[in-house]
Amino acid sequence: MKHIFISCLFFFIILTSFSQTKEDSLFVKQVFTEALGDYEAYENLRYLCKNTAGRICGTPEAAAAVEFTYQTMRNMDFDTVYLQETMVASWKRGEVETGKIISSYGNFDVNVCALGGSPGTGKGGILQEVIEVKDIEELEGLSKSEIKDKIIFFNNPFTNEHFYTFKSYSEVAKNRYYGPSVAAELGAAGVLVRSMTHLTDKSTHTGITKYIDVQNPVPSFAISTYDANILSDLLLKDQNVKVFLESHCELHDDVLSYNVIGEKKGKKNPDRIITVGGHIDAWYNGEGAHDDGVGCIQSIEVARLLFELDIELNNTLRIVMFIDEEMNQRGAKTYASETIFEGEEHYFAFESDRGGFSPLGFSVDADSGFIQNMNVWFGLLYDYGVYRIEEGYSGVDISPLKEHEIPLASLITDSQRYFDYQHAETDVFENVNRRQLQLGSAAMTSFVYFIDKYGY
Amino acid sequence: MKHIFISCLFFFIILTSFSQTKEDSLFVKQVFTEALGDYEAYENLRYLCKNTAGRICGTPEAAAAVEFTYQTMRNMDFDTVYLQETMVASWKRGEVETGKIISSYGNFDVNVCALGGSPGTGKGGILQEVIEVKDIEELEGLSKSEIKDKIIFFNNPFTNEHFYTFKSYSEVAKNRYYGPSVAAELGAAGVLVRSMTHLTDKSTHTGITKYIDVQNPVPSFAISTYDANILSDLLLKDQNVKVFLESHCELHDDVLSYNVIGEKKGKKNPDRIITVGGHIDAWYNGEGAHDDGVGCIQSIEVARLLFELDIELNNTLRIVMFIDEEMNQRGAKTYASETIFEGEEHYFAFESDRGGFSPLGFSVDADSGFIQNMNVWFGLLYDYGVYRIEEGYSGVDISPLKEHEIPLASLITDSQRYFDYQHAETDVFENVNRRQLQLGSAAMTSFVYFIDKYGY
Repeated sequence: MKHIFISCLFFFIILTSFSQTKEDSLFVKQVFTEALGDYEAYENLRYLCKNTAGRICGTPEAAAAVEFTYQTMRNMDFDTVYLQETMVASWKRGEVETGKIISSYGNFDVNVCALGGSPGTGKGGILQEVIEVKDIEELEGLSKSEIKDKIIFFNNPFTNEHFYTFKSYSEVAKNRYYGPSVAAELGAAGVLVRSMTHLTDKSTHTGITKYIDVQNPVPSFAISTYDANILSDLLLKDQNVKVFLESHCELHDDVLSYNVIGEKKGKKNPDRIITVGGHIDAWYNGEGAHDDGVGCIQSIEVARLLFELDIELNNTLRIVMFIDEEMNQRGAKTYASETIFEGEEHYFAFESDRGGFSPLGFSVDADSGFIQNMNVWFGLLYDYGVYRIEEGYSGVDISPLKEHEIPLASLITDSQRYFDYQHAETDVFENVNRRQLQLGSAAMTSFVYFIDKYGY
Repeated sequence: MKHIFISCLFFFIILTSFSQTKEDSLFVKQVFTEALGDYEAYENLRYLCKNTAGRICGTPEAAAAVEFTYQTMRNMDFDTVYLQETMVASWKRGEVETGKIISSYGNFDVNVCALGGSPGTGKGGILQEVIEVKDIEELEGLSKSEIKDKIIFFNNPFTNEHFYTFKSYSEVAKNRYYGPSVAAELGAAGVLVRSMTHLTDKSTHTGITKYIDVQNPVPSFAISTYDANILSDLLLKDQNVKVFLESHCELHDDVLSYNVIGEKKGKKNPDRIITVGGHIDAWYNGEGAHDDGVGCIQSIEVARLLFELDIELNNTLRIVMFIDEEMNQRGAKTYASETIFEGEEHYFAFESDRGGFSPLGFSVDADSGFIQNMNVWFGLLYDYGVYRIEEGYSGVDISPLKEHEIPLASLITDSQRYFDYQHAETDVFENVNRRQLQLGSAAMTSFVYFIDKYGY
């Protein structure tokens, strides 16, 4: 039995090697060497982080980020660089939020921040009793009289056991997405949601909340996990705990913004498009380093690496900085609908939005033939730690292309630290490692090059 | 061709699955779940970092680290926990070092730190002209009169292109190991070595330097990469650049210290030993978090996880905190020679000393049959990102067992950030991620469990 197994493994290795040309090996070595030796991409990330921090769509910071990436791409060898207009929401944080626990054990300042899309409490804030629930189901099991005028505290910690931290996030993120909406409908005065992170610390993790068809949305906040634990402990001991919350966020009229697009025509199929992108907007409280300055810089780097190595693709390469991923995905929707409307032929689309950590592989949303064909070249990336192909979700900004049956893919990264930083004040440049960023750029470039070369 | 390839791959997957039992799958899930859910190991690392920082052998901090790990293991379900005596060097840093560039462009403070084992300059320091060389070969090409009374500045940056950062380190580390010795023999007054890191920053990275049979060793220092670049630039513009250096380190008489050993008897082969360890000493300037507090904590965690899951091994498990890895490996030599001398049968040894980053696999120093047998179970770890088996070097502390033909292995981790911290003041607890640490603990436990179960 063991002999058959070993022979078979050996045969597998030979066949894999046979199908990889020397040219392909050389390409992989060149692209990774060039990427790892580069410092400019990392400096561009530093600029984006330090000069456009808080670039949620509709803000001057978002406009500055659009301008910076536009100018950066204009200085490269694209055939054309242009802005694609789209209207976006304009929600502004205003003054920094305040939170305080009032209890018979004393009063404690707590770290809170407004959820994206939430109304503010305005000056004077709100001061109410608190009801802790695990999730929306538990909230819906309570009577309206219990909920009325209370602050609803969604406190469901991340589970630890999953290898992919995104799985822990997906289990509880609906508390943030829909919890405030449900609480508002049931008569609550406000909402606190436990920050979405594995860490127990004082950072606050914001993110969008959706008030769908809600007549009277209520002010909603994220509370740090450290403070959530304190509040939860106090609620066990003291029936009369109140929380004071104040925020000054406001939703304004939609404003004009842009996707930024750089394009290099393909030599064989200039009308067939490969889209590679990340999102240029980021939450108000950090620098949007991992989420998703990295994805933008890596996408631009895909083009730079190909230009630097004098490689012309068969198909047209389009690098897209999507606006408004965090709020309403208006940039993504505009990109998909306008390009499809214009009858463009899309070959495939690739997104990077899982942080600048070491790349592990690719998540591919396409038929199984696509993945089988990847085996011709995929083994070449093993030497750089890229070894996983998974069928599944690609990413938010390219997902509107899915209904048109366009193959989609995204970078899988080492996600262990991702939610240490996501949507928090700790998502800063210093927490991105240059080498890990650039391994991702090279992995993406390899994907684009090989699919362009070998098809699917 | 493609069909044969795909069928073969399919066959490979089926055979792999077939050879893995449900019990083995369940074990892997349990051990990773238990490890990822644990907080105590991480808190123990915090204690070790914050309360025994600077624990180079022969110091009170090293004694405190010995005591802490001894007490920690005493509170667990080992059959016995004991100290193994060994003499170690006692080299002490003394007052913090001073460095200054004196040039016609101005004088600049620079960040330097003493290399381990170096003599100090004493009060008053040294002030001399500087000669920059790339490596020892370049130095040996100079005349003695050029070198005499100069400060030799070894300035060879890490190359970027290797995936494994250890490869970049190994290319230039001899500048630090042997450069000061060669420079002293040739009549130099002192030595500066560029810090061993990919980063350009102000951190200083120390490490041992070897004065082998050198009559008059000279004071030697690491200089931060940031300051090394400034010094190098100035040397191009100004023939008369001098550097002032002051250090107060001293070598004292050897002192008694200890390896800390916890032992749990095997149920079938109580006389056959499995060794699992890390090193308890660490450089004077940081907290020894990644190097190698992590390896110690993970080794203890291997035992805890097995105890927690009520698993009795067939062979005797011995968890070893090796003393003096950084200076002279006296702990490792004592362990190997004493146990071999006593006629002990060693089954295999495992070391963790590559930082608390996400584990990627195992480096195995054993015959090819050992690795072939790992295929029975190794695929089960893929779901936790553990996928690489490499034949090669294991680690410093278990290497003295190699001459007795004992199979050796070590954890391979994601090394991209390792040299951001190694031997520097930035190697602190806060730069270790709990989940990454514990993925490593679970991977090590799996290795130990399966080799114990299936043999080799």
